[in-house]
Amino acid sequence: MPTLDFWLEYASTYSYLAAARIGPLAREAGVTVRWRPFLLGPIFQAHGWNSSPFNIYPAKGRYMWRDMERLCASLDLPLTRPARFPQNSILAARVALIGFDEGWGEDFSHAVYSAEFAESRDIGETGTITEILGTLGRDAGHVLEQAQAAENKARLRGQTEEAQRLGIFGAPSFTTADGELFWGNDRLETALAWTDK
Amino acid sequence: MPTLDFWLEYASTYSYLAAARIGPLAREAGVTVRWRPFLLGPIFQAHGWNSSPFNIYPAKGRYMWRDMERLCASLDLPLTRPARFPQNSILAARVALIGFDEGWGEDFSHAVYSAEFAESRDIGETGTITEILGTLGRDAGHVLEQAQAAENKARLRGQTEEAQRLGIFGAPSFTTADGELFWGNDRLETALAWTDK
Repeated sequence: MPTLDFWLEYASTYSYLAAARIGPLAREAGVTVRWRPFLLGPIFQAHGWNSSPFNIYPAKGRYMWRDMERLCASLDLPLTRPARFPQNSILAARVALIGFDEGWGEDFSHAVYSAEFAESRDIGETGTITEILGTLGRDAGHVLEQAQAAENKARLRGQTEEAQRLGIFGAPSFTTADGELFWGNDRLETALAWTDK
Repeated sequence: MPTLDFWLEYASTYSYLAAARIGPLAREAGVTVRWRPFLLGPIFQAHGWNSSPFNIYPAKGRYMWRDMERLCASLDLPLTRPARFPQNSILAARVALIGFDEGWGEDFSHAVYSAEFAESRDIGETGTITEILGTLGRDAGHVLEQAQAAENKARLRGQTEEAQRLGIFGAPSFTTADGELFWGNDRLETALAWTDK
């Protein structure tokens, strides 16, 4: 089956939508999805931004939250605007790398987005991640140890650097084997169709 | 018929796509479209940008041009990357206001986008606008005089200020009578459906 790389950032609102939608759509399209968690922080810093553009440009931020409300309503997805935005997504991304190695990465991703954007919890807190790991039946202490190991930290840095090399500047993004980049939840269907053509 | 306001900027690539698509889609949806030319320049300046974000953030710019290539191919629309981007769109916008008063605004808009994004011409040059007016059978000298009158210049400033008050930060944008804002060519169908509901 053809493969599409799905670049997701756990602090990103529109990545929440794409993560919720990509499974069924990919199955329908006959495309295998490779989930590639990465961090937007270093990429935004390279743009001279010390926060999300949705905070730096208030009109854009107001629009994004209203757009999310409308989209979540139409997709029947819960949405609660978190007290802090963007949240610190480093720990979630590090844990996710372990999860994708071991086959529970997708479930973990959905649980992280749900905690963050539906339950008003802070995914930057170790307690939140520990609890999520518990609900997934994982040994949280062991997973966190693997996640925080120097080797795994370097792996996440490498993945973020690869995103940057591929020209990625936002999330979600999708990349194909033949070198196409698609940006945004709005391009998910197009990216799948391109992969499958 | 319900009415949708279509905010377009003549220097904007994605406005070219929306302008090409909105006529048939609005007829099908039973929606009247009010074309509202405005300028992004003052809005970008308020963000601290002295050029298009597609120039300020090169990764975003590279992506936009490739995205435009793919979209134009799928819509069967010509695309030639102009030598200068963004172009100075003030004169085109001023002339368009006269055109929409007199019923030739849409034809003028299509001709401007075609000159700029299909024929590699500079819409910032009076000669280009004069020639377009000629092909539309207008008295270019008379129209340019009206367009450059203080009152018409003030009208365009007013329209741009109104866009800003409505929370518009990019083009194309769409606003509805019940206060919704939709941003981007990608949201055209959603904006029409919202207007018609």
